[in-house]
Amino acid sequence: MQTIDDTAALIDRARRGDRRALARALTAVEGGGEAAQRVGAAAARHAGQGYVVGITGAPGAGKSTLTGQLVGARRRLGDRIAVLAIDPSSPFSGGAILGDRVRMQAHATDDGAYIRSMATRGHLGGLTLATPQAVRVLDAAGYPWVIVETVGVGQVEVDIAGAADTTIVVVNPGWGDAVQANKAGLLEIADIFVINKADRDGAEATRNDLEQMLMMGKLAEDGWIPPVLMTVSTTGQGADELWGAVEDHRTHCEKTGVLDERRRRRTETEMHTILVRRLEQLATAQGGTEAWRSLAESVTGGELDPYTAVERLLVTVGLRS
Amino acid sequence: MQTIDDTAALIDRARRGDRRALARALTAVEGGGEAAQRVGAAAARHAGQGYVVGITGAPGAGKSTLTGQLVGARRRLGDRIAVLAIDPSSPFSGGAILGDRVRMQAHATDDGAYIRSMATRGHLGGLTLATPQAVRVLDAAGYPWVIVETVGVGQVEVDIAGAADTTIVVVNPGWGDAVQANKAGLLEIADIFVINKADRDGAEATRNDLEQMLMMGKLAEDGWIPPVLMTVSTTGQGADELWGAVEDHRTHCEKTGVLDERRRRRTETEMHTILVRRLEQLATAQGGTEAWRSLAESVTGGELDPYTAVERLLVTVGLRS
Repeated sequence: MQTIDDTAALIDRARRGDRRALARALTAVEGGGEAAQRVGAAAARHAGQGYVVGITGAPGAGKSTLTGQLVGARRRLGDRIAVLAIDPSSPFSGGAILGDRVRMQAHATDDGAYIRSMATRGHLGGLTLATPQAVRVLDAAGYPWVIVETVGVGQVEVDIAGAADTTIVVVNPGWGDAVQANKAGLLEIADIFVINKADRDGAEATRNDLEQMLMMGKLAEDGWIPPVLMTVSTTGQGADELWGAVEDHRTHCEKTGVLDERRRRRTETEMHTILVRRLEQLATAQGGTEAWRSLAESVTGGELDPYTAVERLLVTVGLRS
Repeated sequence: MQTIDDTAALIDRARRGDRRALARALTAVEGGGEAAQRVGAAAARHAGQGYVVGITGAPGAGKSTLTGQLVGARRRLGDRIAVLAIDPSSPFSGGAILGDRVRMQAHATDDGAYIRSMATRGHLGGLTLATPQAVRVLDAAGYPWVIVETVGVGQVEVDIAGAADTTIVVVNPGWGDAVQANKAGLLEIADIFVINKADRDGAEATRNDLEQMLMMGKLAEDGWIPPVLMTVSTTGQGADELWGAVEDHRTHCEKTGVLDERRRRRTETEMHTILVRRLEQLATAQGGTEAWRSLAESVTGGELDPYTAVERLLVTVGLRS
């Protein structure tokens, strides 16, 4: 078993550029439990410098290829950059998932780029907690840019992508895409829109659609109007301009205090999720188990309704008086 | 405001056949909150006799028409029957929704049939809690059969349909449908398969596909092998046979103790969902406190990791020593 000292040593090695140590730290974070918490706590002491960019959009929009181009463009500027790709195991995702090996080819020999997939293992809720911890580890390991890429097809994925300093929403040319993005709640979280595959027909029309939808929605309270950019991820066209837009947004958020506010809110959301989970553990811990079983029996037997049963359980375990 | 006595009176009126009282009770349940809990608690005292049949499948599979035929077939046997149609407002659902008025036409003047849609109002999680409460109300109102119909496109909908005594999964002829059903996790929850629109090409092939998939999966532990039935919901063909299969499954579950076991597990799942939600309320109540704010600040400032912060909060509020 890893001790606290081992964990600190692991993070130190990751900070000195040891990619195997970094991989082990991320695996620990992905696995959850106490090891994940120790790694996260050790990482937190060195984190706070990284800037998090979220990328989301429907399956097949070309997010992975675009992410690859963004990594290349950032590396040409000399910055280290890491990517967390959230692997959707959703039963309805369908599309093939571009594996790490394929993505990595272009950056495999580059020590300044680190790309990692995080699997859901059928436990989506876990990702909500694992993602910020993984970002913390990459931040501590000295990556000033961290891209979190998710497929925007479920609330959890949308939430994860939206929990970034700057969120990029990727759509393709065609009316349906803008509408779908709107339906999926992507319009609300977008700081920057990208019409990828912009060499196809209908890119301009999609830009107009998006801009109209944005105008119909209420203007962002922070005074930022999401720009709509065009990219062709297969050639890299537009990747530099996209980084330009990210940096514009970053400057805006830093100047207006929006960045601090966002990070504070992100922290509180994370703490809230952790608190709920801890309370759940406390409620179902010993003492709770016996009470739980007998209360469940009363509900199944029709003597008690489940809400009253839960209130009684909370009293039994001392969470309510 | 309704008092507890009012609520009991409402359920009593619904039990005496007052459809307006029943509708009001269901609206209360749908709305959530304390009124929903009072209604559910009052209903629980009279519930326990109803048998719940879940129907699910992809949009357009003909579930609503089939449900209408099932209602007709059951009424011809003289049994009262209620339908809860879960209205999918999922951003990705797309398909048109058959309204209550259309469905009701055939049974509008029939006091022994009651059909009701429950809307998600953008709050899918709420349905997980509202559905068993609504079933409890219909059960208390004296409907020995309750059909819960959902479109099987999301985990929540699949969970709701699967939380029945007998679950029917509806597919259409064509290889894609069986594969989609499998991907969506519908194979695991199916007690009975129905190939609806069986007058179309490919019905036999789809039956073979399904039976092969079932053979490849591990055999059900309870010894029940899901039969694959054919229906044509536009004509009613197969509806009587489908009820026959439901009754076979019911007999099997009653004999083997599977029914009690399922209901016990269903109760525990419901209690767990309620528990998590109550804990979430308790956690939110902490959100505004001074201790919370100062801990969140430390986390945002990088002095503390969020897990340690939550542990300290639990100590502060006396839930941990």
